[in-house]
Amino acid sequence: MLKNLKEIPPTTIIRLPLYLRCLKELKDKGVSYIPSHELAEKAGSNAAQLRKDLSYLGEFGTRGVGYNIKHLYFQISKSLGLNKKYKLAIVGMGKLGPALKHYKGFSESGFEVAAVFDNDQKKIGQKINHNIIEDVENLVNSIKNKKIEIGIITTTVEAAQQIADKMVIGGIKAILNFAPTYLEVPSRVILRQVDLSNELQVLSFYLSKKR
Amino acid sequence: MLKNLKEIPPTTIIRLPLYLRCLKELKDKGVSYIPSHELAEKAGSNAAQLRKDLSYLGEFGTRGVGYNIKHLYFQISKSLGLNKKYKLAIVGMGKLGPALKHYKGFSESGFEVAAVFDNDQKKIGQKINHNIIEDVENLVNSIKNKKIEIGIITTTVEAAQQIADKMVIGGIKAILNFAPTYLEVPSRVILRQVDLSNELQVLSFYLSKKR
Repeated sequence: MLKNLKEIPPTTIIRLPLYLRCLKELKDKGVSYIPSHELAEKAGSNAAQLRKDLSYLGEFGTRGVGYNIKHLYFQISKSLGLNKKYKLAIVGMGKLGPALKHYKGFSESGFEVAAVFDNDQKKIGQKINHNIIEDVENLVNSIKNKKIEIGIITTTVEAAQQIADKMVIGGIKAILNFAPTYLEVPSRVILRQVDLSNELQVLSFYLSKKR
Repeated sequence: MLKNLKEIPPTTIIRLPLYLRCLKELKDKGVSYIPSHELAEKAGSNAAQLRKDLSYLGEFGTRGVGYNIKHLYFQISKSLGLNKKYKLAIVGMGKLGPALKHYKGFSESGFEVAAVFDNDQKKIGQKINHNIIEDVENLVNSIKNKKIEIGIITTTVEAAQQIADKMVIGGIKAILNFAPTYLEVPSRVILRQVDLSNELQVLSFYLSKKR
């Protein structure tokens, strides 16, 4: 019985992509079933947590056999809304922006980079893969015309809020911000902050205990 | 009273860098105190969660005044082991590797990129900032000689496990893996997997509910 998706706790939601990644790898290797403790271990979780997380999506797994990998992969994908396609705009073609543009994991998950932007006149008009770098002055119109739903910010800290404001005017629905600063957006816009040094700080915690 | 750091739950540990980032921004702005609900909101948490998280580190905050920002920043930094310096090696100088090499957040948090590697003869010997790209064949020796503790993998999926094995032989203590594949390392080595598309999948979940 499928529960209302609204009830899934945020902590479960952030673990679903981890399970999905493991299931994809198993599926690609041609594996059909996996016991819950093995899947949990692969995903850096534990069996009780995994079972609880999956209980929000429905009933899965057969005692003594484990999970049907293809079926579970499909169900988690669907819960995450990955059966749909999303258009992205990336603003900031310094170092990180182009790296994200080339990141294969995005297109594999159904995310299409529909437009890329910079404010540097030397970069505007240049091609990165299939995209021509547009002037950030076109950001609002481009988001509207191309019906882009997700904006990725890889600009400097100083420019980030202004870019977010333009994205909001253009009608963006969600923002992923890599600039190390907190942004203010209306509550209707979903905002997630990615800080690449956070992961190193977590490693530091465990390392400092070992030293 | 400071509790034993070993007791801090992993879910709290991953939130500490988020609080730290907010406190840094406030500190840089010259703010002295912040009420718990404001700090919690800035960090995307709530006041009860924040108070519980901080209770693992000690007793903070004064009723009616809030947290002393400088003091709390110092205590969280210390808990995360950020009063120490760490040397990093980045392997894979495609797109993402150089972007991480240039990422300012690393050096701000006390992480020094001590060596960068690739297997492409055209790239080996080239300079990226202060680092000369070394041949990945030198990886084991370079980690040993420079006493590098943290390895970052930004290679292809195919090369990632082999690179992790070399890092382990060289004596690395922690690995941050950006290649979208699961790695096997001995349990003494701390491993964290970063998947840049996970964040987009979480956005997708919330977007699909809105559509």
